[in-house]
Amino acid sequence: MTVKIAVLGAGSWGTILANLLVENGHQVELWGNDPKKVAEINEQHTNTHYLPDFKIDPQLHATIDLNVALDQVDVVLFVIPTQAIRAVAEQIVPVMIAKKVKPVIVTASKGLEQGTHKRISEVLTEAIPETNRNGIVVLSGPSHAEDVAQKDITTLTAASSDLIQAQWIQEIFMNDYFRLYTNPDVVGVEMGAALKNVIALGAGALNGLGYGDNTKAALMTRGLAEISRLGVAMGANPLTFIGLSGVGDLIVTGTSVHSRNWRAGNALGKGQKLADVLANMGMVVEGVATCKAAYELAQQRSVDMPITRAIYNVLYEDCDIKTEIAYLMRRSGKPEIDFDEV
Amino acid sequence: MTVKIAVLGAGSWGTILANLLVENGHQVELWGNDPKKVAEINEQHTNTHYLPDFKIDPQLHATIDLNVALDQVDVVLFVIPTQAIRAVAEQIVPVMIAKKVKPVIVTASKGLEQGTHKRISEVLTEAIPETNRNGIVVLSGPSHAEDVAQKDITTLTAASSDLIQAQWIQEIFMNDYFRLYTNPDVVGVEMGAALKNVIALGAGALNGLGYGDNTKAALMTRGLAEISRLGVAMGANPLTFIGLSGVGDLIVTGTSVHSRNWRAGNALGKGQKLADVLANMGMVVEGVATCKAAYELAQQRSVDMPITRAIYNVLYEDCDIKTEIAYLMRRSGKPEIDFDEV
Repeated sequence: MTVKIAVLGAGSWGTILANLLVENGHQVELWGNDPKKVAEINEQHTNTHYLPDFKIDPQLHATIDLNVALDQVDVVLFVIPTQAIRAVAEQIVPVMIAKKVKPVIVTASKGLEQGTHKRISEVLTEAIPETNRNGIVVLSGPSHAEDVAQKDITTLTAASSDLIQAQWIQEIFMNDYFRLYTNPDVVGVEMGAALKNVIALGAGALNGLGYGDNTKAALMTRGLAEISRLGVAMGANPLTFIGLSGVGDLIVTGTSVHSRNWRAGNALGKGQKLADVLANMGMVVEGVATCKAAYELAQQRSVDMPITRAIYNVLYEDCDIKTEIAYLMRRSGKPEIDFDEV
Repeated sequence: MTVKIAVLGAGSWGTILANLLVENGHQVELWGNDPKKVAEINEQHTNTHYLPDFKIDPQLHATIDLNVALDQVDVVLFVIPTQAIRAVAEQIVPVMIAKKVKPVIVTASKGLEQGTHKRISEVLTEAIPETNRNGIVVLSGPSHAEDVAQKDITTLTAASSDLIQAQWIQEIFMNDYFRLYTNPDVVGVEMGAALKNVIALGAGALNGLGYGDNTKAALMTRGLAEISRLGVAMGANPLTFIGLSGVGDLIVTGTSVHSRNWRAGNALGKGQKLADVLANMGMVVEGVATCKAAYELAQQRSVDMPITRAIYNVLYEDCDIKTEIAYLMRRSGKPEIDFDEV
């Protein structure tokens, strides 16, 4: 089976996924908005800004023209920053109509839209009319692009309310080092992917403060418990959080010094101020914005999220991090599983 | 509230828990079977074999005499090796009868009894008549003794079918660095604690083979999925595996080079033979025996545990580890949550 796929976004993850799909025998157009990078991919078969040492399959074609990318397309894969998704989705609708295509829409981005707190699949549902798409599938899981580049074994979840579409996407992506599992719980998969960055910030902060393995595991486990509580309040299956988009992604993000969120937390734990941390990082730390979104969603839905609240207080209310930890430990004893309280 | 507690087992974890209970204001007798170590604890206030640099609270009294340990006792805490639990439990019954005590029985050991594959609370239920005990509570979670010795924040689950007893134990143990959560699911908590060592072996093996973060997270997440399947088949609540005795304990065991199971797996991944690995370790590697127990339980209950089977094949059938990994990756695509298949 060969299908025509448009990959929107030529960053590290988009490039790696496009390359994998070419290896799997599909016809792929990689769309990017930077003519220089697109030319580099087509002529040098490299993308040195994002993947310094990676050799791209010469059969992968890149383009800056959505008319080329979307011609006779079966699948459109979004791998662009969360905050740009609505604009690009609105941009492709007239092209899809002109090209008379009705592709499956897939997203491999993670996050919540600022202001609206909407999940990416919600944004896509709003921006692309139902008559112009053949289902929406969310890809998520523990996946450093650099590891996939080395053909390290990687597993993802393909979530969709439409099992047939999820299984079709599973078949398109799977090979001997890349394995997908289907899950009908789109809400749980997207909430796990977005909120794990908040917990990664906290895990980094504990490291900066000098805490050890027990404390890191406590933070990650109880953090996952409150992510699950919020997810369940929003309609998720709690078992999704034990899966690749929950536990799996949390393990790579919360224990890896390569994670931006972890590094920012670590600097906060060592006593730096948020403004200085962000200035020094020189790039977006997604967990900082997501923490605010999670805090506000928890308030709206009356969900108890003590760890998120503590991190919010440190990030946005200039509270002392050690005081917040002491407060967390002084709370009354609780049951471990408490979805009934939601 | 001050209670009288007998802690059975003066290893690192028993000593640290006994010391913490003294700090919390309780009257504690620490029972050990080595007169020299017991004398060292009482006279030097150290236990250098297990905890080289740790100063024990001088108020902690140790004894080799069960009559002293069990006199007027309210709580008996088992912290002895899994395979010795049945014998010690049988040994204390006549002493409890003579002393006319009916304590709450607590266990902080992890594992399954060899041969019977029974959980520790099942062994205790069989060995101690109901008339001689006031409930059974299982303590489990991510807890290196060395971290607790440094008063690092640590969280555990207190599992019991009797919520009142679990809450009482929670109250006895909790302080500003040690936090307990109650859980009614004894089966899930004990199965998570025992089986995570098998996954830790696998995580070590992947490291030895040179795999990266994505693959480690994949193994841990899909390993947890099959532990949960077996647990559910035995009556556990799947949500328990998202908790401290599941995810939490797996994070410390599967990502720490201090874990014996991880180190043994790492050596196997580098190509050493099992017999050589065990000889070089010079101590028990619990995951090796637990893997056999899990494999047999899965066969008895017709539960699909592909990762456990692969590790079993490497450990006991002399199969090639890379062939087993390739087989895992070549299986057909699956759904992520599949308790219905059990």
